[in-house]
Amino acid sequence: MFGKYLENVRKTAPLVHNITNYVTVNDVANILLACGASPIMSDEPEDVEDITSICGGLNINIGTLHKSSINGMFAAGKKANELHHMTLLDPVGAGASKLRTDTAIGLMSEINFHVIRGNISEIKTLATGSGTTKGVDADVADAVTEENLDAAVTFVKNFAKAKDCIVAITGVIDLVSDGETCFVLRNGRKEMGKITGTGCQLSGLMTAFLVANPDNLLEAAAASVCAMGLAGEIGWSNMVEGDGNSTYRNRIIDAIYNMNGEILDKGENYEIR
Amino acid sequence: MFGKYLENVRKTAPLVHNITNYVTVNDVANILLACGASPIMSDEPEDVEDITSICGGLNINIGTLHKSSINGMFAAGKKANELHHMTLLDPVGAGASKLRTDTAIGLMSEINFHVIRGNISEIKTLATGSGTTKGVDADVADAVTEENLDAAVTFVKNFAKAKDCIVAITGVIDLVSDGETCFVLRNGRKEMGKITGTGCQLSGLMTAFLVANPDNLLEAAAASVCAMGLAGEIGWSNMVEGDGNSTYRNRIIDAIYNMNGEILDKGENYEIR
Amino acid sequence: MFGKYLENVRKTAPLVHNITNYVTVNDVANILLACGASPIMSDEPEDVEDITSICGGLNINIGTLHKSSINGMFAAGKKANELHHMTLLDPVGAGASKLRTDTAIGLMSEINFHVIRGNISEIKTLATGSGTTKGVDADVADAVTEENLDAAVTFVKNFAKAKDCIVAITGVIDLVSDGETCFVLRNGRKEMGKITGTGCQLSGLMTAFLVANPDNLLEAAAASVCAMGLAGEIGWSNMVEGDGNSTYRNRIIDAIYNMNGEILDKGENYEIR
Repeated sequence: MFGKYLENVRKTAPLVHNITNYVTVNDVANILLACGASPIMSDEPEDVEDITSICGGLNINIGTLHKSSINGMFAAGKKANELHHMTLLDPVGAGASKLRTDTAIGLMSEINFHVIRGNISEIKTLATGSGTTKGVDADVADAVTEENLDAAVTFVKNFAKAKDCIVAITGVIDLVSDGETCFVLRNGRKEMGKITGTGCQLSGLMTAFLVANPDNLLEAAAASVCAMGLAGEIGWSNMVEGDGNSTYRNRIIDAIYNMNGEILDKGENYEIR
Repeated sequence: MFGKYLENVRKTAPLVHNITNYVTVNDVANILLACGASPIMSDEPEDVEDITSICGGLNINIGTLHKSSINGMFAAGKKANELHHMTLLDPVGAGASKLRTDTAIGLMSEINFHVIRGNISEIKTLATGSGTTKGVDADVADAVTEENLDAAVTFVKNFAKAKDCIVAITGVIDLVSDGETCFVLRNGRKEMGKITGTGCQLSGLMTAFLVANPDNLLEAAAASVCAMGLAGEIGWSNMVEGDGNSTYRNRIIDAIYNMNGEILDKGENYEIR
Repeated sequence: MFGKYLENVRKTAPLVHNITNYVTVNDVANILLACGASPIMSDEPEDVEDITSICGGLNINIGTLHKSSINGMFAAGKKANELHHMTLLDPVGAGASKLRTDTAIGLMSEINFHVIRGNISEIKTLATGSGTTKGVDADVADAVTEENLDAAVTFVKNFAKAKDCIVAITGVIDLVSDGETCFVLRNGRKEMGKITGTGCQLSGLMTAFLVANPDNLLEAAAASVCAMGLAGEIGWSNMVEGDGNSTYRNRIIDAIYNMNGEILDKGENYEIR
């Protein structure tokens, strides 16, 4: 089911503009190349409009903000909206500092994002901070588990509806919803949390999937989550004695490089709520 | 002896704020995750106080300075002092430029660091530049060897005493002193110098060890140096034909990921002077 | 033939100042260490003159420009020229945005570069933008192939002559010319394009080769291109099932680490036009 969305990425080789943190930027670039897309990075306000114009999608990640890069995010986002490009927000660390929370909420209010992707606490911060879903988030714990899954699904659907976009909450169990439908994905391994930037990588990958699959953004977003999780499983199965999180990082990107539609179809593990 | 300090890191999972250079930042993040700690990176002056407040320790590395990140270093350092967090200074390239030397010395004068960690020439620069240990440094060569070890031990003790903090000088032979006691550590391999950022990684790792072991900072600092050196030995023993410095980088982080207290206890190689 | 140029790098261990993008900077540092050189990174205008002064060469890469780093590039370039250091320009993304094109052309007009190294479209942009070789570039396609090789050789010779420097155009077939002679190199593998930053790495490597071989810059530049391509071949031959672009990145740097003059001499694949 998800395989065709990956195949479309390989066929169309989308160009993705990334304004992303300097911690994990290299891995984001390599995973985009691994899936058949092409990355460009630029955060200088004077540069971003030209760069985003030649791309098909824009991935904004607030992991290491600078005054200047914040301006770049707003400028690029507005240009991408104007050109009807795919846009994704990864609100890294929203809730951890006022600057991050304010920047994420400011971006959400001035730019239309096709997808917001984060972990449960980042998304809860955005839900609370934005004032539109108070009360809902209070029912959601700090991790999505089988026990609180119903509440989490309700939360993600409500937040997606309120923001009129797709929301992806990733963790041990991943949720991707457009407000009506919610994909619950169970691919992946907990050890992925011991690598810096698997979330950032997924945001890059997802943007490529969106650009290549404009006719079904919800399934494209869910497909990218599934591909990342499956790469985590395949990468782990290739680990040998002595390997740890640094090698695991390489093996996950390698698994995306070697993945095709058939592998993804066979490995996918999801339900729809 | 050192094993318990690593175990404490794994048990307490300290959150470490890093203001570090963009060259090796990804490896610093991954080695912190490998040892059981969690990294956060932020250098924007408006962001750093919030971020450092939620952490237990602050690792300041001056490897690639920007006007703005220098302000972030001072702001974060003062806040960390105020909150009695662990603080570490890695004066990368002190002596190579006026800006680096001045920044390191300025930071030392306005912020109380629990540890200063660098190579012998960086520490010599700080000793000379600060004007307090002139003469001593003149007796120390550019590398700590078995031949000049006595002079080096005297130098590091005097500098630690003068600065009232722990000083770690790392190289083929590592020295860690609080002014009274000096650990002389002989773990590690010379090939570690062919990887960019093993020093930066150690500074991150050491900060995590300090946060997790507030009752014995000297031994905690020495334990982290020992762990890094032992990881270099274990990583090297896993090298196969065709491997070089890039793979070695992964294998060292992997070795930290797989290290436990028992392994560290068995592998440690040090004396006390 | 090219082996001695690599041996000279290992013998002299040149120090290379890199003002380069934050995407691939870690790999640039590691490949410089792999070939026996030493990297220093610094882009802050107040820092760059001191740093470049202690180095033998300066590698300027415009991959992720900031207002401040642009100033750093001009300041460092002028100082390097004043000190007769080796200078290289990597015009990443010239043509993709006005800021990048203008910066590359501005740098070319104010700083004397020993080498300009880029892909064919970047170099075409510089040729057109600078107004001196219009018409020539119109004859060159977007990739150098066996079919359009004659036109490409003419183009690179003319552009090198016009700019009075060495020009290296890299891709599946690589061209390195000083305006009179043109090396046509056929080492490498197309899969290198699936790794972010192999071009950036080559620019770092090439700067080290220039510094270590001041008496024959053309052959030194060609030797570095050959070494990088051969590393791509050797790295690929070490790939096992499940490996992908992330592991390939490590294997290429590893191959440089393990390369010596004899290996390079045996593996070189070039002709002179």
